[in-house]
This record gives sequence, structure tokens and C-alpha cells, in this order.
Amino acid sequence: MASDCLFCRIVAGDEDAEVLGRDDGVVAIRDIFPRAPFHALVITETHLGSAHELTDDHADVLNAAFRLARKVAAEGDTADGYRIATNVGTLGGQAIPHLHLHVLGGRQLGHIDTGEPPTES
Amino acid sequence: MASDCLFCRIVAGDEDAEVLGRDDGVVAIRDIFPRAPFHALVITETHLGSAHELTDDHADVLNAAFRLARKVAAEGDTADGYRIATNVGTLGGQAIPHLHLHVLGGRQLGHIDTGEPPTES
Repeated sequence: MASDCLFCRIVAGDEDAEVLGRDDGVVAIRDIFPRAPFHALVITETHLGSAHELTDDHADVLNAAFRLARKVAAEGDTADGYRIATNVGTLGGQAIPHLHLHVLGGRQLGHIDTGEPPTES
Repeated sequence: MASDCLFCRIVAGDEDAEVLGRDDGVVAIRDIFPRAPFHALVITETHLGSAHELTDDHADVLNAAFRLARKVAAEGDTADGYRIATNVGTLGGQAIPHLHLHVLGGRQLGHIDTGEPPTES
């Protein structure tokens, strides 16, 4: 764990977050800058910089992350659809350098990129 | 395979596509409606309606899909970042009802949703 990493601190309980669920090696929290009526983040308990650092050794945690994403989406207001997305690096729009999946729903989503630089996380 | 499914036809070789790579149970093609300088789709060979239909039985194919996404991203112009995203259902912006990951990069990406309904795939 990197103590200067916000998501590591959340995983460790050293930083407040609204926890929506847990699964093997992953925690789901509500995004504090929601982009949709439902916006959760599924965070790996292990510190990985991004999805680009995943290896075959992480197949189980990736599976658990998607399982938890489906679960929190089903519990959220996403019956008619949602999006799972993960950003890698600066140009990818990644704000926190700790692997996380965004899960968005609750309204009609548009294209998967605005074409404009992000203004917040 | 559903023969009326575009992505099943691409997987079967019955429909043209620019194939960027293959891995166990997945194929990467170039998106014909690119939203960024690099825009690939990683398609499962098995027909699954969306990521919501994934189960623990698909842990290996999910892992392979992310492995292939990383590979095509690394081969594309995405050194400084990219995004992996999958849409579920109508409100999620899913256009083709066959599980696929979008892999976008090659420019600064913005927010992971435009807030506007999609105008094409």
C-alpha cells in the first residue's frame, strides 16, 4: 500500500468514502464527483497504477471487479443500462493513479468520450 | 453464434473487419466509427449480450479481453494513456448487443460520458 495514494487510504479505512459493496480484493464506493445519477468506482485493494499493470495473475481480481460492478449497477438505478470504464494515464483521463472501474448509469449515456479535456475527476 | 449478430459474423469471418489481434476467445478489430485517433473493439468470440451477462465461468475470457486490449493499445498511438469501456443496454449507449470493450486513445480524452445521446455507434 502507498500511504500517499487516496484509494489505498480508502481501502485501509483511513479516508472516508461511501462503501457500496465489497468482493474478493475489490471495494466499490460512490464517486464524489458523479457524472450520472449513479456513479460508483470499483477499486482494487492491491495498489496497481492502472489497468495497464494488470497481468494474468490478476484474472481473479479483474473478474471480482466486474462481478462487483454488475452487483452495484443492479442495485443502483441502472435497469436499462450502464457503462463500465477505466482510464489509463494522463491522456486517458485518469485522475487517481490506482486502478479503478467507473460504473455509470441512471440516465441515457452518450459517447464514451466528450472530446474535451476533463475539468474534474 | 447468432447469425443475425454483426459481431458474431465478424468473428466467423462472414463480415469484413480490420482485425488488430486475437487472444483466447477474443478478437480485436478497428472501430469503423472512431471516436479517437485509435479506437479498437475487443469482441468475445462467444456471443454474450453484454458485460452484464458475464459470470465467473468467463473469468478467463475477461482476462484475455483485457490482455488483448492492453496489447492493441500498446501497439496503437496510446503511450500516454487510453480508455477501456464497455456499454450495457440502451441507456448505457450500447449499439451492438454483443459484448465488446472499446479501447480509445491517441489524444487527450475527456469525461467518460458526453451527457448527450449518441448519434452513431
